[in-house]
Amino acid sequence: MDGEVGIRSAGITPHTVAVRWEDGTAAQFHHVWLRDNCPCTQCRHAEVGERLSVEAGGHLDLTWPDGHRSRFSAAWLAQHAYERDHRVARRPQRTLWDTNRMRTELPEVDFADVMSGDDGLVHWLGLLRRYGFCIVRQMPTADGTVLELARRVGNLRDSNFGLLWQVESRPVPDSLAYTSVKLTAHTDLVSREAQPGLQFLHCLVNDSTGGESILVDGFAVAEELRRTEPAHWVTLTSTPVAFRYQSPDTDVSAAFPVIRLDADGGYYEVRYSNALMAPLAVDHDRVLPFYAAYRAFSELLRDPRFELSFRLGAGDCEVFDNRRVLHGRQEFDPQTGPRHLQGCYVDTDDWLSRLRVLQRTQDFRLR
Amino acid sequence: MDGEVGIRSAGITPHTVAVRWEDGTAAQFHHVWLRDNCPCTQCRHAEVGERLSVEAGGHLDLTWPDGHRSRFSAAWLAQHAYERDHRVARRPQRTLWDTNRMRTELPEVDFADVMSGDDGLVHWLGLLRRYGFCIVRQMPTADGTVLELARRVGNLRDSNFGLLWQVESRPVPDSLAYTSVKLTAHTDLVSREAQPGLQFLHCLVNDSTGGESILVDGFAVAEELRRTEPAHWVTLTSTPVAFRYQSPDTDVSAAFPVIRLDADGGYYEVRYSNALMAPLAVDHDRVLPFYAAYRAFSELLRDPRFELSFRLGAGDCEVFDNRRVLHGRQEFDPQTGPRHLQGCYVDTDDWLSRLRVLQRTQDFRLR
Repeated sequence: MDGEVGIRSAGITPHTVAVRWEDGTAAQFHHVWLRDNCPCTQCRHAEVGERLSVEAGGHLDLTWPDGHRSRFSAAWLAQHAYERDHRVARRPQRTLWDTNRMRTELPEVDFADVMSGDDGLVHWLGLLRRYGFCIVRQMPTADGTVLELARRVGNLRDSNFGLLWQVESRPVPDSLAYTSVKLTAHTDLVSREAQPGLQFLHCLVNDSTGGESILVDGFAVAEELRRTEPAHWVTLTSTPVAFRYQSPDTDVSAAFPVIRLDADGGYYEVRYSNALMAPLAVDHDRVLPFYAAYRAFSELLRDPRFELSFRLGAGDCEVFDNRRVLHGRQEFDPQTGPRHLQGCYVDTDDWLSRLRVLQRTQDFRLR
Repeated sequence: MDGEVGIRSAGITPHTVAVRWEDGTAAQFHHVWLRDNCPCTQCRHAEVGERLSVEAGGHLDLTWPDGHRSRFSAAWLAQHAYERDHRVARRPQRTLWDTNRMRTELPEVDFADVMSGDDGLVHWLGLLRRYGFCIVRQMPTADGTVLELARRVGNLRDSNFGLLWQVESRPVPDSLAYTSVKLTAHTDLVSREAQPGLQFLHCLVNDSTGGESILVDGFAVAEELRRTEPAHWVTLTSTPVAFRYQSPDTDVSAAFPVIRLDADGGYYEVRYSNALMAPLAVDHDRVLPFYAAYRAFSELLRDPRFELSFRLGAGDCEVFDNRRVLHGRQEFDPQTGPRHLQGCYVDTDDWLSRLRVLQRTQDFRLR
């Protein structure tokens, strides 16, 4: 990226270097920060003295009081300017969505495009980053194909379900007809500290009546809650809720807000699963506000404005960010035909790493 | 635990049931909370009406306005009382330590005791929970034995180093002598969202001069910082610091405070690795306070009062909570003899789950 942006001027204040880029924008960098980030191999965390000289242009050249010289490219500085406006501008762009938007904007790709080259892969991961989900079409329906797709992204995340898990139902002759009830939208593995990032659900066969997939953009619903019930939003972003999963040989628990923000107030994740909530453990005066806020959020998650419902056919795979997009399933009648999905997970660290590396390569290629 | 504690009296207020136990302590439970936590299989999140009757004793029996009856054991209620004092009392007990305390209180166990039965295993995991580390003695020095030990606890955590990794150095004939410098104490895999929990370092051979192990109780050092420099402590518990690991095929990043607290202000983890810190990205007026606080904390981490140094011999394995106890290594001279350690990780969710399940069984057995 060197050379794309130049430094028009740079001045020294007692604690900072003030930089103005050629496009008129500006940023300040503390001396101690600059010295800490000197790109040369020999220095980190050196002391900072009193005199410093500066030359600007395509680079910022600094000479420190001890004679050491540091050279920062203008582009690197622009990428690391640290005031809030700069940080917010660098955030990945998300498109929050409701069912209405999905009528015209459903993100989907073909399996062959994702598997054949980096362009298809980075396009797909970019859609996942933007919308929090993407449907992969025209996949072979062979057992385990979903693992091939997931491994295009990164290592599989193991869980108590195993690396590859089955969601399967077949008609049972001579049994009484029964109905598989609707699963309202939730996130998976809420009781673990790190909920899995990408979830893959690959449809091998879907011949039963009902059973449409449900996806809900948890960040869009959180924004709707903030708009309509700001006090509830504050409650859900600040009340720790414990989730717990217990079995004969497992007892895992994690406590975080249902709507979790990052340090700059951006959405970090949603953690939501009614069945795995542990008894609320907060101060007395936070109990009633929590239940009121939780109920309001739950109602919005089930609102037809946000609950996207669509049918997966054989060869379709829904892939979604389990920490943003909640998933569920409409009621279906297992007696009307077989239904078989295969699923797996990839951690957030791994899929974002893959996207960053691909974008790094793409930037390089474009130059 | 039923029957260990009884309820002396219970009264109903408009929103709560006020319980007094036989030992004189008390707690209040909101109606909505009780109904939400009704232990029967058929109800969750039912509405709460206006009339409720209560009977107390070994159990709290509630009859709801719709006729539904809920029965809570006194012990279960005592375990889930949710006011701050109750929550804090339920926290696992930790012993914060400095080098002085470790002269008389070094936690250690024998490999055979850990491997042979649940008593030895739960004792060992209890020491790890209390001190954040424990040395396992008299291990066979066969390749991969550390994996047997780790699998007594839970699944291995994979990483970019692989499941089993080597720390190995051998004298190189005819080469110029060189020195392997001291590695100051740090935590591992700081750039991943979930730092590994337990770290295992098994010594197969250690014939070189120097190279003593270093362990530092990060929570004890954080407490010392709070005591001596409370403003620095606030800075380090509230400033997000990004860590980043980049290689040709990886680009992983995570941002959390160096000292991270849980929702009740208890210590959650320390995340500290100079080499992997990304450029600080916080508002202008937080930069200088951060550097000052970080420097103070770094100095305390290297203070002989806190930096425990000891020699691992062949057959010793140091096991530590990577998110509490920082680790390092003194300088050593590779020309004086071979040095070979093998290591692996187990996630926090998994080792705490194992401990909870074992304690559940022990409670059961003791009754």
